[in-house]
Amino acid sequence: MSLICTGTIGIDTVHTPTGTAERILGGSCTYFCAAASFFTPVRMVAAVGDDFPPAFRDVLASFPNVDLRGLETRKGSKTFAWGGKYHQNMNTRETLFTDLGVLAEAPPRVPEVFADSKFVFLANSHPSVQMDLLSQIKGKPLVVADTMDLWINIAKPELLVLLRRVDGLVLNYDEAELLTGKANSVAAARHILEMGPRFVIVKKGEHGALLAHRDGIAALPAYPAEIVIDPTGAGDSFAGGMMGWIAGAPEASKEPGAFNTVRKSLVAGTVVASFNIEAFSLDRLKTLKREELDRRIAEYTAMVRV
Amino acid sequence: MSLICTGTIGIDTVHTPTGTAERILGGSCTYFCAAASFFTPVRMVAAVGDDFPPAFRDVLASFPNVDLRGLETRKGSKTFAWGGKYHQNMNTRETLFTDLGVLAEAPPRVPEVFADSKFVFLANSHPSVQMDLLSQIKGKPLVVADTMDLWINIAKPELLVLLRRVDGLVLNYDEAELLTGKANSVAAARHILEMGPRFVIVKKGEHGALLAHRDGIAALPAYPAEIVIDPTGAGDSFAGGMMGWIAGAPEASKEPGAFNTVRKSLVAGTVVASFNIEAFSLDRLKTLKREELDRRIAEYTAMVRV
Repeated sequence: MSLICTGTIGIDTVHTPTGTAERILGGSCTYFCAAASFFTPVRMVAAVGDDFPPAFRDVLASFPNVDLRGLETRKGSKTFAWGGKYHQNMNTRETLFTDLGVLAEAPPRVPEVFADSKFVFLANSHPSVQMDLLSQIKGKPLVVADTMDLWINIAKPELLVLLRRVDGLVLNYDEAELLTGKANSVAAARHILEMGPRFVIVKKGEHGALLAHRDGIAALPAYPAEIVIDPTGAGDSFAGGMMGWIAGAPEASKEPGAFNTVRKSLVAGTVVASFNIEAFSLDRLKTLKREELDRRIAEYTAMVRV
Repeated sequence: MSLICTGTIGIDTVHTPTGTAERILGGSCTYFCAAASFFTPVRMVAAVGDDFPPAFRDVLASFPNVDLRGLETRKGSKTFAWGGKYHQNMNTRETLFTDLGVLAEAPPRVPEVFADSKFVFLANSHPSVQMDLLSQIKGKPLVVADTMDLWINIAKPELLVLLRRVDGLVLNYDEAELLTGKANSVAAARHILEMGPRFVIVKKGEHGALLAHRDGIAALPAYPAEIVIDPTGAGDSFAGGMMGWIAGAPEASKEPGAFNTVRKSLVAGTVVASFNIEAFSLDRLKTLKREELDRRIAEYTAMVRV
């Protein structure tokens, strides 16, 4: 069923302990949509400037399941650019620079043809922007949002308003602690449930993910990746795999936000993310075949079986 | 089948963000044996001084499956004492003091009646002491050792000798990195396999555990504990549950060190450890009933099923 993602497209410069990649295709919407597209058609809503390289547009267009009709190109504007550096263990990073570009302008609009989307992922941005985008969707979709420490620090009231409107929240381990003041991730996740969402997914990078749902709790390890080239987009491709699986799975159509559905979707998210980090940008996802994905999903499922 | 543990018995003073407990029963052998005893009889080899409180001996004796014939009480010696303080998130701690006491003397001997043990756990101590204890066991037992950053730093050659003699190694996440220089836990664990063991278990506290075995790899999340009173002994009770399960499971008797056996044993270790951290010292394990344990094992198994 129809899945939409609102978020950023960026031009990234990434330094890792093993290498550097300059001005590569990145952004939350990019990683989310590429990952989701393995499971279902996905609609992209994002804005870029007229400096956006045609080669990057070609990469996006090479994913047949990604609908680019919501990709706005703004004359005279600049594409969002981000530079970051990962520390030795790849678990933490620092931002070296941020050129907001179009992100400092009005957010993109949801095209009328996308307004009937049944599954909505609001990738990380100011919670008021997320609310505005959500208000353009009709009906009662399943809504999942991402957020980050910046908004918890400077826009918590707006974030709390958003949390009463979403079904699910995805956030990092340390962000869950920041939002709730609770250092234990289970306690933090349960506390967030009281703020509105039916479920919360706490991402822990190489340590996997925790799902706290009103109807149960689940935890999954990450796929044990030995070679990590670039962790950028791991969280967004995780969310993309997860939401794509829910939107695409016939078994999920009846109860898309149910505990068992969300729990199963974490496998898809975990495995797509494990491919994403094997290369910079979309270099791995753009060559990934569905058979490879299914094989690793089977391998991972066997690995966590006890 | 016969399981033996060599290690420490200590008098601990523990500060956590929620409370302090002074001069309580602790030590690696204590936690290991208490945890293992839920699954199989276990033989304890450790030494204490004549200051060891009779009440602590009574606690140990209250575990009917723990054989105390290897517990030496030394006249004129002092029991090992340790003081530690946990940081806010309970994941890290600092040592406040260490009174070696009997640990500065000759290590305890393995009683002749224990020399036929088929399963050996060498809890953390100087690798030469571990080698000496191991040399007192006859036959070809399944041997698993624990270690710590101190020995990696000051006794690495001896540790490397030990690693060629053990079937399995259990160590913390940061210790695996320290031992191998590899920041990725999968890469570190695989590297340790080249040092001798058939399997390595990397403990990650609240993030669960990673098993790297010559025949496969597995990862498990921790039980999502919301209330953590005292993490002391989590690793030793994890190892105890794991080794106790292997020694006690009929299905494990044919191939105790096989990938599938070790993988399944991690569940027992994870769940016993989750009870242990609910109280200081053995306060929770000494009241734990097998039914409670089995119930949580079933709950955990369902939780990780995907």
